[in-house]
Amino acid sequence: MYRTHNCGQIRMEQVGEEVTLSGWVQKSRDLGGMTFVDMRDRYGLTQVVFNMETRSDLCQEARKLGREYVIQVSGKVAERSNKNPQMPTGDIEILAESLKILNKSEVPPFTIENNTDGGDDIRMKYRYLDLRRPEVRKNLMLRSEMSIEIRKYMSEQGFLEVETPVLIKSTPEGARDFVVPSRMNPGEFYALPQSPQTFKQLLMVAGFDKYFQIVKCFRDEDLRADRQPEFTQIDCEMSFVDRDEILEAFEGLTKHLFRSIKNVEMEGQFPKMDYSEAMSRFGNDKPDVRFGMEISEMTSLVQGKGFQVFDALEYVGAICAEGCAGYSRKQLDALTDWVKRPQIGMKGLVYVKYNEDGSVKSSVDKFFDEAALKQWLGMFRAKPGDLLFLLAGERNLTLKALSELRLEMGSRLELRDPNVFKPLWVVDFPLLDWDEETGRFHAMHHPFTSPYEEDIELFNTDPGKVRAKAYDLVINGVEIGGGSIRIHDEALQSKMFDNLGFTAEEARKQFGFLMSAFRYGAPPHGGIAFGFDRLVALFAGIESIRDVIAFPKNNSGRDVMIDTPSTISGEQLDELFLKVKL
Amino acid sequence: MYRTHNCGQIRMEQVGEEVTLSGWVQKSRDLGGMTFVDMRDRYGLTQVVFNMETRSDLCQEARKLGREYVIQVSGKVAERSNKNPQMPTGDIEILAESLKILNKSEVPPFTIENNTDGGDDIRMKYRYLDLRRPEVRKNLMLRSEMSIEIRKYMSEQGFLEVETPVLIKSTPEGARDFVVPSRMNPGEFYALPQSPQTFKQLLMVAGFDKYFQIVKCFRDEDLRADRQPEFTQIDCEMSFVDRDEILEAFEGLTKHLFRSIKNVEMEGQFPKMDYSEAMSRFGNDKPDVRFGMEISEMTSLVQGKGFQVFDALEYVGAICAEGCAGYSRKQLDALTDWVKRPQIGMKGLVYVKYNEDGSVKSSVDKFFDEAALKQWLGMFRAKPGDLLFLLAGERNLTLKALSELRLEMGSRLELRDPNVFKPLWVVDFPLLDWDEETGRFHAMHHPFTSPYEEDIELFNTDPGKVRAKAYDLVINGVEIGGGSIRIHDEALQSKMFDNLGFTAEEARKQFGFLMSAFRYGAPPHGGIAFGFDRLVALFAGIESIRDVIAFPKNNSGRDVMIDTPSTISGEQLDELFLKVKL
Repeated sequence: MYRTHNCGQIRMEQVGEEVTLSGWVQKSRDLGGMTFVDMRDRYGLTQVVFNMETRSDLCQEARKLGREYVIQVSGKVAERSNKNPQMPTGDIEILAESLKILNKSEVPPFTIENNTDGGDDIRMKYRYLDLRRPEVRKNLMLRSEMSIEIRKYMSEQGFLEVETPVLIKSTPEGARDFVVPSRMNPGEFYALPQSPQTFKQLLMVAGFDKYFQIVKCFRDEDLRADRQPEFTQIDCEMSFVDRDEILEAFEGLTKHLFRSIKNVEMEGQFPKMDYSEAMSRFGNDKPDVRFGMEISEMTSLVQGKGFQVFDALEYVGAICAEGCAGYSRKQLDALTDWVKRPQIGMKGLVYVKYNEDGSVKSSVDKFFDEAALKQWLGMFRAKPGDLLFLLAGERNLTLKALSELRLEMGSRLELRDPNVFKPLWVVDFPLLDWDEETGRFHAMHHPFTSPYEEDIELFNTDPGKVRAKAYDLVINGVEIGGGSIRIHDEALQSKMFDNLGFTAEEARKQFGFLMSAFRYGAPPHGGIAFGFDRLVALFAGIESIRDVIAFPKNNSGRDVMIDTPSTISGEQLDELFLKVKL
Repeated sequence: MYRTHNCGQIRMEQVGEEVTLSGWVQKSRDLGGMTFVDMRDRYGLTQVVFNMETRSDLCQEARKLGREYVIQVSGKVAERSNKNPQMPTGDIEILAESLKILNKSEVPPFTIENNTDGGDDIRMKYRYLDLRRPEVRKNLMLRSEMSIEIRKYMSEQGFLEVETPVLIKSTPEGARDFVVPSRMNPGEFYALPQSPQTFKQLLMVAGFDKYFQIVKCFRDEDLRADRQPEFTQIDCEMSFVDRDEILEAFEGLTKHLFRSIKNVEMEGQFPKMDYSEAMSRFGNDKPDVRFGMEISEMTSLVQGKGFQVFDALEYVGAICAEGCAGYSRKQLDALTDWVKRPQIGMKGLVYVKYNEDGSVKSSVDKFFDEAALKQWLGMFRAKPGDLLFLLAGERNLTLKALSELRLEMGSRLELRDPNVFKPLWVVDFPLLDWDEETGRFHAMHHPFTSPYEEDIELFNTDPGKVRAKAYDLVINGVEIGGGSIRIHDEALQSKMFDNLGFTAEEARKQFGFLMSAFRYGAPPHGGIAFGFDRLVALFAGIESIRDVIAFPKNNSGRDVMIDTPSTISGEQLDELFLKVKL
């Protein structure tokens, strides 16, 4: 028996009891006659006292303990004279009567505390030590708790969790697949799923009615800070439902999680916004609606007034930053540099200050008189003290830049309160996306998304205008998930593949099983997938999903702790009928 | 809105209500003036009536419905005149007022009923139709329910579910790995985990204390009927525990599952049996202890009596089949053929009949007199009417054959009641297993299993005798799971790798991260993994794990529905720096 209690458990009620604890040495202090050791485990910290007077042997030993040693201590619980109200166990201490070193520790390469001195690289290499830090463990405990709550809720709602296969088939649509060579089928490969999309649809054809799964998915993409080659989805599908029934079901899940995990009550139905409206008002298909500062188009208002910069460009738009008229030259120059960075890509920034005294000052007042500038300000119902920012350029690029500027100003003005959660459904996405590079349409969501019936005739005239029955859930500007009503009709699915440039043969070879399934009584169905890593990060109040994953990969897709990927033996390659050519 | 109710829901209380149902046509019967259609969904069956007199238009349409059409019906709930007590909805029917065909169906390639006319191959090709059969769906619903209960129980016991990575590192120890080429790291590969073993140990080093995960694992083995290249484990690890605390924790889980899912109360502590005892008494390290018929060694008793067959062989053992003395010549010949099959590999079967009249008859009574035969019978406390079977040969092979014969006789005598569940912990396995082929020791469990301290010195003299702190949970002769106390000391782990024939360099390259982790305060720890597929199959009362997996692979590792594995494009191979050589 290694312990009678854990290190977070003992209170005043146990005073006088004999207890045994096991755990790590968090720190020790040597005060002459006494040595104090804080023992740590997952559950907390407990102070242990070694007394030089009564047990000099033990105290001598305790003085030799290093940080992160694993020890077992037995002793009597005593009330502390000097209580620590910051610690749940701060009223008591253990008077050590025996000490056993269960394992030694070298000095760790960084301090095991929330504010560690370790950089990213060293912490990832020694991730098992990094995971000892309370804030990292807290994130993973949150993750565990959330997955339990999700499963509880979904199963109460009648969803069945069904495991779909990991070794599936490579399809060139979408991102790159990771592939797995098959030894038993020489020259052939499995692929790892980018999502269980076709399997969950087949489960609907099979009559499972309501499916969910918390499942690992894989994408061989060039990685960014917030992408991982393997990630986790809350994947769901329902039969005999229309769009709003799906949205309602997943509002229910979202509200349940906020209530049970964060004690946050989300009132009323989540608002819905068309994709096109989101783009024009926020320049973004995942707007952060915790604050206003919406974009207005100014193009027709500002063109033809002799300012050639505006006249020459496709689009002019603006946002109004409340209370920023006092911005200095230096602040404005810095913001101008900010929008000129390659990530934003604007040529310049035009401002209009609505001074507190009612006067107007602008970087373009050579071209526009006060009446014109006041008309602009009027459009935004600006008050004295406000500041207008105008950007001009190609429409989509400028909208995107205005969106970035809006988010930046929102952060600077502290309008993005991390304790406020504003959900939004963005709906009616375009079905197809024109890809300049390949000169053809791509599915914006995926090739199984249903178009609106009334838009189907647009396939022949203006395919880019066809709207999809697709939807995304956005919270605080973070895309939590997305889904769609699916095609369940073989003819429409064929037409869709046709529009995406598949030959009939390619469609049959890659998705023949699905087309065939549609021939045997496929029900109307639709679904959604939430990014679980992203959702946990939102709940944890952190930016990067890496901090909510136990063993993440770095930007080159490497796990630097176990040092993988790595070479494999020639024998393994031979068995797989493969040769590496570098 | 596709439905107001599902097809398993409506009862007498709804009589008179207008309802709308959506579902599949299970069957339809045309009785002249009336057409009856049974509509099916996940939740049940409901009878719909189309009346030729009142709604001839609808009735005409209904007559054209084929099996598995997806339809939507609205109408009034009515009490049936001819009730069906077999069906939960058998008291009511729906008087159809509207009918909409949501999707047509071709005639399915086999009947969608429990007793289907479809063979294995066709059912696997159309798995989405096979999954419509109630008994297949029932298995998957059981699986979903069990996973929910496991998670509920484990989290209540303070276990955290932590997702470990799927893209890990290939290690040659154990079975073959599936590998995944890395595009971003040319010439390098990830491997898919055979288990999260090292990661869960690192989580213990990280102080997570109690970990579990229901997780997919992968093994590139030549497949047998009850093996799949991807399978699911309930994977667990605990810190600061000794063996019996682990066994107690997982007895708790097992009892909880039997109680909550099957309403079976498992009383008392599960019995424990040494590996060596299991082998000598049952010839098997996973004995079915629902019945006795134990093996006794007869070697010293039967040798040196002039029967050269026995004298020449290493081992003679027997079992006693109660009440089988009446077996005919034909039955005995058939059993002799049975033990001579290559799967069993015996040269012959010796019997001793203890006739009801007290006389004795044996196939070896030329060599052994009645007194000798009665002595043998006495060993088994045989009664008149019993039958002794003796097998002789190389010790391990013969024990295995006796075990098979015992199980076969147990089945024939109906001693293996599927409604009785007898658990057994098999403990104290040998740590190492001598492999004739490679001429070295292998880890019987895995290289991280701790030996008994008192056996460590045997490493130098008789390594095969070192006992491991390893244990398996066996229920009704099925191995449900296994685990061990792990090594947490770097020096002992090195010694272990050394005994397994690893050079220091190989050990460092493959497991350096774990050895390094042991240097920073690794706690004593141990764990277990249950085979989830096997556990569900046991609960479902079926033999093959394939029947509890939604989309299983066949014996060549193929998914014949989606037709994978398959070839990938030359472009994909180029991006991965690979060439196929066949």
